[in-house]
Amino acid sequence: MIYLDNAATSFPKPPEVIQAVVNQLEQIGGNAGRSAHQGGLASSRLIYETRCCISELIHCPDPLQIAFTLNATEALNLAIHGVLNPGDHVITTSMEHNSVLRPLKTLEASGISHTIVWGDETGDVKADDIKNAIRPNTRMIIATHCSNVTGTLLPIEEMGKMAKEHHLLFLVDASQSCGSIPLSVEALQADFLAAPGHKALLGPQGTGFLYIGKDLKIKTLKQGGTGSRSEDLLQPEVAPDRYESGTQNIHGLAGLKAGVDHLLKTGVTEIQRHEKEQVNRLMEGLSVIKGITLYGSPKKKERGSVVSFRPGNLDVNQFNYTLDSLHGISARSGLHCAPLAHQTIGTFPEGTLRFSPGWHTTADEIEAALTAVSQVMKQFS
Amino acid sequence: MIYLDNAATSFPKPPEVIQAVVNQLEQIGGNAGRSAHQGGLASSRLIYETRCCISELIHCPDPLQIAFTLNATEALNLAIHGVLNPGDHVITTSMEHNSVLRPLKTLEASGISHTIVWGDETGDVKADDIKNAIRPNTRMIIATHCSNVTGTLLPIEEMGKMAKEHHLLFLVDASQSCGSIPLSVEALQADFLAAPGHKALLGPQGTGFLYIGKDLKIKTLKQGGTGSRSEDLLQPEVAPDRYESGTQNIHGLAGLKAGVDHLLKTGVTEIQRHEKEQVNRLMEGLSVIKGITLYGSPKKKERGSVVSFRPGNLDVNQFNYTLDSLHGISARSGLHCAPLAHQTIGTFPEGTLRFSPGWHTTADEIEAALTAVSQVMKQFS
Repeated sequence: MIYLDNAATSFPKPPEVIQAVVNQLEQIGGNAGRSAHQGGLASSRLIYETRCCISELIHCPDPLQIAFTLNATEALNLAIHGVLNPGDHVITTSMEHNSVLRPLKTLEASGISHTIVWGDETGDVKADDIKNAIRPNTRMIIATHCSNVTGTLLPIEEMGKMAKEHHLLFLVDASQSCGSIPLSVEALQADFLAAPGHKALLGPQGTGFLYIGKDLKIKTLKQGGTGSRSEDLLQPEVAPDRYESGTQNIHGLAGLKAGVDHLLKTGVTEIQRHEKEQVNRLMEGLSVIKGITLYGSPKKKERGSVVSFRPGNLDVNQFNYTLDSLHGISARSGLHCAPLAHQTIGTFPEGTLRFSPGWHTTADEIEAALTAVSQVMKQFS
Repeated sequence: MIYLDNAATSFPKPPEVIQAVVNQLEQIGGNAGRSAHQGGLASSRLIYETRCCISELIHCPDPLQIAFTLNATEALNLAIHGVLNPGDHVITTSMEHNSVLRPLKTLEASGISHTIVWGDETGDVKADDIKNAIRPNTRMIIATHCSNVTGTLLPIEEMGKMAKEHHLLFLVDASQSCGSIPLSVEALQADFLAAPGHKALLGPQGTGFLYIGKDLKIKTLKQGGTGSRSEDLLQPEVAPDRYESGTQNIHGLAGLKAGVDHLLKTGVTEIQRHEKEQVNRLMEGLSVIKGITLYGSPKKKERGSVVSFRPGNLDVNQFNYTLDSLHGISARSGLHCAPLAHQTIGTFPEGTLRFSPGWHTTADEIEAALTAVSQVMKQFS
């Protein structure tokens, strides 16, 4: 199998990730923050260490500013529902995932409005267009770092600076970049940053986190046992407990810690270099196959590890099925849960075929994928 | 180590649970509902099969009525926030966990009121007392099946019947019973039932579910990508997609399926019989140690696998620490996130020491724990 679907979930996981999960499952009996016996304490320590290595990765000054969630979607929802109140206005982009668009659409019923700033045909969004959309009641700007459809990198540094100048909160969706592109929440001046644990952070599914800016206290999505201040009938104020009700995915977080440790050891710039090489190889190869249309930023511009294309007039889903069943290539076709991104680049409602190389993808695998695309094109043309 | 903290999280997990997680992590690359390649389809199938075996366990007619969550707390929050609207009234009991009490307390600010029906000194709650608390605007009754503090079983069959007679919704918190006491949502006439995956269901942490009654559509806690109807900017109506935004904990659910399969093979009545035996042995042994006060239902009454006690005037946390550090016994001390339950039985604010045997706990382990309790009592008295 040639796995080119790392933007959906990374595969394979490093062996130490699997080992860490097994170790936690096999050796450590206990629930973090609940039980003061050795297994419970070991679990609490492990969760704290996971906060620490993520903090190191994204340059977060205090590990207690990391709140764990089921996935990046929950992290985005926590920030969006946690911050916004009736009367507020939000600015976002047409390149966002449904995990941003659907909460915003849902909040319209509560009197929270939003403006969608449209990208150009390469998926790029101008910070100036966002600036021009600011209203007196604008409270937050939400932008993806890297489009999951086109790999286009949005100018989030510029947006962060502008948000601060206008005293607006800034939420970054780093789902497609955290772990494969160097990130610093301090440099970005981000108030919130959401990411999944199972993509470029190489951890298990069921993990994700929200970075929350210093001294920001937001509403909670859920209330319940936090293992702290059990005598209080209201949710505790202390973070991150406040945002982490119920038993955490400690078995998953054990794997996530191992994944992030792996990244820190390898170096994110090295991973970025490797993925960029595969993306360039892929784009050059695809651009010379007759009938293929490539989307997103032009070849020489920086992009994330995502390449979207269409095989002429052929059906993307059928094409993807053939790649999988005849050539053993795992890729994704369709809308990738980001319908407006496809409207932006002109591929709605059919969507695109998406190849997303990962830390392990080899040049040979890219060459094999290119040969397969070429063959399927010939077969159906 | 003698592990007597199964009410916090079960340990050890059956080997096939660990194997299932490893298999999913090692062999299956793909994200359920997102990617139509073989790994993605295998993941989707696995999630569906997990719904099926849970449905078999709790006699749920349709696997699509099972929505997966991060934990039981999220499942309870989904039902509570999903159902209630300003002006509604809820009846619950003093034996509930903070995962019920804190959402209800939080909702007071939105004009949603609640009545807490107090249990007697054994933790028992009378269905008639709940009936007497019904008001014209009462919309839901929420009750735990088994107290996590005393192991007391609440009369949920009677409550379910009464809820139906009064056209009220009925939410059962089965956190301490699902997997170790036979349950049927049909027999209970429950509209919602919440349970964690990592306690008696023997699965990994980061898993839980909410059973949702037929044709009940509730509000969502989160909105985002569901892999379905990606073109819609509003959350899809179809269940369970509607309630499961973002990548699910598929690695954890693989383990949960193996855990539930293990239960179905062993038989919940057999597990219940085994645990009851250990609980009886524990209660008989504790009742003859001088200075020990036992809480909860009297010896001969049916109870879940939870035994709470206090060692005279000794500090429960110090006692627990000594049991752990000198005798290798993993137990839990304190309030167990259920403060009103302790007010009910008269152990607030210090709490109790809690022993919770599991499917694997042996008679020898119980005897060793009793000897240890006896020794620590002598040491400090």
